[in-house]
Amino acid sequence: MLPLYCRKRLLLIGENLSRYLRHSSNHNATTGDGCDQVSLLLRLCEERHFISPGAFHTKTCVYGPLGTELKKNILEQWWTAAIRSRARVFGISTSVHTRPCKESLMIANYRTVQENYHQDSVTTEEALKMVFQNSMSVRSNLLQGALQQYVHALELVSRKLPFGLAEIGLCHQSNDQSFGNSHGCLSELTESSLVWFCSPRTSSQWMDYWARQRLQWWRKFALGPSDFSLCDVADKDLKEGILRGIKVLCKFPWGLETLETLWSLGNTELQKTYEGTQTKLQCRDGRKVVVPHVISISGDMDKGMLAYLFNSLKQLKKTDSKQKQRTVLKLHPTLTPVKVALDMGRGSNSELRQVCEGLLQEFLEEGIPTWPGYLDTLPLSLENLHTKYDEMGVLFTVLVSETTLKNGLLLVRNRDTTIRETMHISEIKGFLLRYIDASENL
Amino acid sequence: MLPLYCRKRLLLIGENLSRYLRHSSNHNATTGDGCDQVSLLLRLCEERHFISPGAFHTKTCVYGPLGTELKKNILEQWWTAAIRSRARVFGISTSVHTRPCKESLMIANYRTVQENYHQDSVTTEEALKMVFQNSMSVRSNLLQGALQQYVHALELVSRKLPFGLAEIGLCHQSNDQSFGNSHGCLSELTESSLVWFCSPRTSSQWMDYWARQRLQWWRKFALGPSDFSLCDVADKDLKEGILRGIKVLCKFPWGLETLETLWSLGNTELQKTYEGTQTKLQCRDGRKVVVPHVISISGDMDKGMLAYLFNSLKQLKKTDSKQKQRTVLKLHPTLTPVKVALDMGRGSNSELRQVCEGLLQEFLEEGIPTWPGYLDTLPLSLENLHTKYDEMGVLFTVLVSETTLKNGLLLVRNRDTTIRETMHISEIKGFLLRYIDASENL
Repeated sequence: MLPLYCRKRLLLIGENLSRYLRHSSNHNATTGDGCDQVSLLLRLCEERHFISPGAFHTKTCVYGPLGTELKKNILEQWWTAAIRSRARVFGISTSVHTRPCKESLMIANYRTVQENYHQDSVTTEEALKMVFQNSMSVRSNLLQGALQQYVHALELVSRKLPFGLAEIGLCHQSNDQSFGNSHGCLSELTESSLVWFCSPRTSSQWMDYWARQRLQWWRKFALGPSDFSLCDVADKDLKEGILRGIKVLCKFPWGLETLETLWSLGNTELQKTYEGTQTKLQCRDGRKVVVPHVISISGDMDKGMLAYLFNSLKQLKKTDSKQKQRTVLKLHPTLTPVKVALDMGRGSNSELRQVCEGLLQEFLEEGIPTWPGYLDTLPLSLENLHTKYDEMGVLFTVLVSETTLKNGLLLVRNRDTTIRETMHISEIKGFLLRYIDASENL
Repeated sequence: MLPLYCRKRLLLIGENLSRYLRHSSNHNATTGDGCDQVSLLLRLCEERHFISPGAFHTKTCVYGPLGTELKKNILEQWWTAAIRSRARVFGISTSVHTRPCKESLMIANYRTVQENYHQDSVTTEEALKMVFQNSMSVRSNLLQGALQQYVHALELVSRKLPFGLAEIGLCHQSNDQSFGNSHGCLSELTESSLVWFCSPRTSSQWMDYWARQRLQWWRKFALGPSDFSLCDVADKDLKEGILRGIKVLCKFPWGLETLETLWSLGNTELQKTYEGTQTKLQCRDGRKVVVPHVISISGDMDKGMLAYLFNSLKQLKKTDSKQKQRTVLKLHPTLTPVKVALDMGRGSNSELRQVCEGLLQEFLEEGIPTWPGYLDTLPLSLENLHTKYDEMGVLFTVLVSETTLKNGLLLVRNRDTTIRETMHISEIKGFLLRYIDASENL
């Protein structure tokens, strides 16, 4: 069990993170170590602008500048891997509003309720009816949206299998089962979805193919790839009509969590979506005409972001200092939200600041995500500065000092090697661009 | 007035587009010409995979592969201009769920209602209460989210003005006033928001600065920049507490529409958000301590996408053909969703297809958005092929033919010049990359 202090913090963290963290506080397997790591990451996320400190108090899911960019980078990589690098997967964008009825979450106009409620001539029953007449269901996942686009997509591929429809979008889920009727039981999450249509003959091979692809993708950006693994869903746990299930898992301090799920759905879901118009569904599989099998691959990208944060959090021994440990967020160079921090040493403030501002503009124009650390007026020792940027996952710290004014030399420190080298101001931009380019093609 | 046929189509188009288009059908000023252009664009969006044909029937906002990428490209450019190229603007990501009460749209759990409704021991009144106890408000704009992050953001900038918080996110709006109580009166839109905090002394200059910046941004990607303009909101139309308003307008076939709005809000909204803790709000403006003024800049990016579609739609006279007109979607090279279409002429299908597949992989690996036109098995004449890709806004059409198999020469056609030139297969990738690179730095 986590100590009360820790659990309280966990309970207060933003909507999405809290679900997993809250869940963890009920796990008996959690050791003291796990708790340390959880509270360390929470502090770090709060102090280093990944999650808004406000989120702890308002129970909502709010990301700060670093969290926002990190999530954007993860989604961008997913989009590239799923769609932009494939000829037979098409990106779509469907509505948050779905067909009414079966969905349990609805958007209703509260004003309408109130207005009708206060009219004496209208019974409460009638008022209730009116609310839901004017309301719409909101989606809890992206599968239905893709299935509804299936028939239109057939045109794109001349009815030839296989092909896929992919989307990233906001979904709303109701967690009333796990957390009782407490307020705040509704949660929003960013889901990634790839729905693959293939011939029934090959659907099992495609399940294996996609499971491998997805695992590989998660591992590609991980510091500790072995934390990510696959697991088959046991036959007895499969819902009716589902042929197979595979999960992509990640090791969190409190145990395994599911990041992504692959379901082999057969063709029942597709047929349900197009009841009465079954001939529309037919595709060509070589010379045969078939109704395709559907493989649904959906990921929780907020949880994925948390997975990468935990996975890249490292506490390393320090050799050159009195502090015993060094905390570094070793996020993958492609994902890390800030590639370079620009800061300045002591000296003539206004002149150093001018140099910083010039460099900043140069970096931003080249699209190098740069943190304007020199704007912070709190004086920090060099050691504290490195601690700060290590915890932010910043790849390089560039220090402008009095020396720079004299001979144009900057001090450049690498997050991963901790090596500091001097470099001429005219070379720094090219150096950074080459490094970022190379690390993205790793 | 638009003819009935045209109005019916307009009424059926997806949630977001329909609002503007529906609106247009009531304008008396609309001429026959405008209607032609509207129906032409509707057909084109439907046939060329910008908007899902399904959207016409389900009244929801669903984009096809081209619409999805176009919107993504617009949002990406906005993000770069607002955040990534500026030192003092930070990206945030706030919750769709807002504090309850004043907001009129709420997400409620329908199952809970139904369950409680059918219990005889619970009165309908109690049931109604329970629905809304378990529900949450959803945001209708991004301003409140940014104001709530203001205090945390002060840390980032050491309480120094000016600075900004920016976000792109989904909002829900209720249009019951404009469209009565009809079903489908709720709409979703993607809003862009930049909230700028500055000293009261300079807020008027900043309004002018941002208005110019925003107009410049819209014009940068326009084929007809003069369609975009600024307009001051008349003093009499300003709500209480708002000091000034400026709108970015775009000319649509039926008249002007607002794409983005800038409000100079003074400090009342900020003070309302932090009632009782006013000292927290103070910032440094040089040596003075002030409560900043707030400038809110918010754009409707679905409408923005429609603006660019209309703006880039051109009907040109043909000189070399029997057809009188050529329809081209001259989207800006940076925004256009497909840069290259790969297609093949008549000949040995399997061999030509192999060449296409090889080229496709090469292009995709370099991140060149490519349309696999050779997958379409319907044989099209070269003229129809060009018509199709012109309507999709594709920059280059690369044709693999029997000649390619013999001597490695491809036929490359430019959308804007309509010039066809032959190019060796080994040169094409470099040529495309150079062109795309150059056009992005225009």
